[in-house]
Amino acid sequence: MKTIEVVFSPALYTFKQTNENFIAVIIDVLRATTSMVAAFQYGVKQIIPVSDLVIARDYKSKGYLVAAERDGKCLDFADYGNSPFDYMNEGVLGKTIVYSTTNGTRAINLTNDSQQSVIAAFTNFSAVIHWLIEQDRNVVILCAGWKNMFNLEDSVCAGMITDKLIQSGRFHTSDDAAKASMAMSNVALKNLPAFIEQASHRARLKLLGVDDSLEYCLTVDKAKVVPGIRGGVLVDLLKIS
Amino acid sequence: MKTIEVVFSPALYTFKQTNENFIAVIIDVLRATTSMVAAFQYGVKQIIPVSDLVIARDYKSKGYLVAAERDGKCLDFADYGNSPFDYMNEGVLGKTIVYSTTNGTRAINLTNDSQQSVIAAFTNFSAVIHWLIEQDRNVVILCAGWKNMFNLEDSVCAGMITDKLIQSGRFHTSDDAAKASMAMSNVALKNLPAFIEQASHRARLKLLGVDDSLEYCLTVDKAKVVPGIRGGVLVDLLKIS
Repeated sequence: MKTIEVVFSPALYTFKQTNENFIAVIIDVLRATTSMVAAFQYGVKQIIPVSDLVIARDYKSKGYLVAAERDGKCLDFADYGNSPFDYMNEGVLGKTIVYSTTNGTRAINLTNDSQQSVIAAFTNFSAVIHWLIEQDRNVVILCAGWKNMFNLEDSVCAGMITDKLIQSGRFHTSDDAAKASMAMSNVALKNLPAFIEQASHRARLKLLGVDDSLEYCLTVDKAKVVPGIRGGVLVDLLKIS
Repeated sequence: MKTIEVVFSPALYTFKQTNENFIAVIIDVLRATTSMVAAFQYGVKQIIPVSDLVIARDYKSKGYLVAAERDGKCLDFADYGNSPFDYMNEGVLGKTIVYSTTNGTRAINLTNDSQQSVIAAFTNFSAVIHWLIEQDRNVVILCAGWKNMFNLEDSVCAGMITDKLIQSGRFHTSDDAAKASMAMSNVALKNLPAFIEQASHRARLKLLGVDDSLEYCLTVDKAKVVPGIRGGVLVDLLKIS
């Protein structure tokens, strides 16, 4: 039996109990990981996650396609923002994209103590579940949150993944956050959009006028991709293994 | 309308959104705040919370009664440990107790940016609710957790308090953690002992052979006290106001 631990904020990652031989699953439903999943679904070759905007600008000057968002807004020098719809076109096919967001890329870079970091969202839920079951390793799920604060949509997604892995009979958990996330997802699943409608980040996106992708972000199983880090960049692990 | 925010770990307190003119409510159900509530119920005059064991030892050498616990165990130089049963006797009547625990006193000291810090547990639930409604101020609930990790029992208690305050019609919340805690408490309240039985700290206490107080710690409304900080020490605010 493998273990599952859930971490509700990047600021709590350092206190986790699972520290060896584990797979890190990063969730940033609104909207970094959902957008990355969409990008791979539409044929992006690789994504280079960078935390620092100076580095993102530097890549841009070298001719790379750059996605950059801060506080929910697309930055002026960037080719793409943080909406999954930005990536749903032929222009991304076979391309490398440099990606920097408020919470998502920071969370990805934080998990470099794992054996393998992968990206999850509601949209690639079943693909991630199947892949994790095949790996047969301990799992740590990191919710990207919002500026280190707990958030509802990432935690519910973490709870759904935890629940499904435990149902497989190959995983168990003694972690309180994992149990809490399952309790939340069981409440949320009665009406996912209504539950997430409560989320503070939903209000934040509404204020910015960029909430058109919300329904898509909360849809389960739109894409059969498992983006994961290989040699410092994200690739679709289903295509290389 | 006043606001409610819930913080799931002392490590997240610095990221909270409520930073002015608020009351901090500290919860450490197993067992610091439950024990403090019991102590005031049995007539303790004041509790001096200290984070540092060196300072606790120093108070002991000056003749103070000292409660000191680390990792769930009572320390050898201390008069009391972290069990509420330790304080349920006439010996504590009118006394000052110096109190140092793994998570609880640290959390109390962290909230010195509040207008008023108070102590909550399941055992003084209604007393705290009534007092908070009377104060008519914003509320931040801090779960002491376990070594900065999320824990189930403190979060469920936070959710019950949040739910009750919102039901009063005088409070609202746009905080995701507050909403998540309510979802959890609604699941938990169907069978509180069974839900908390899952908690990892419950297993920890069992290992230490000190789980005899668990049923008491999960009992709602045993004591009509609201311990709060005045001049650096905890007193029963219901007795002085």
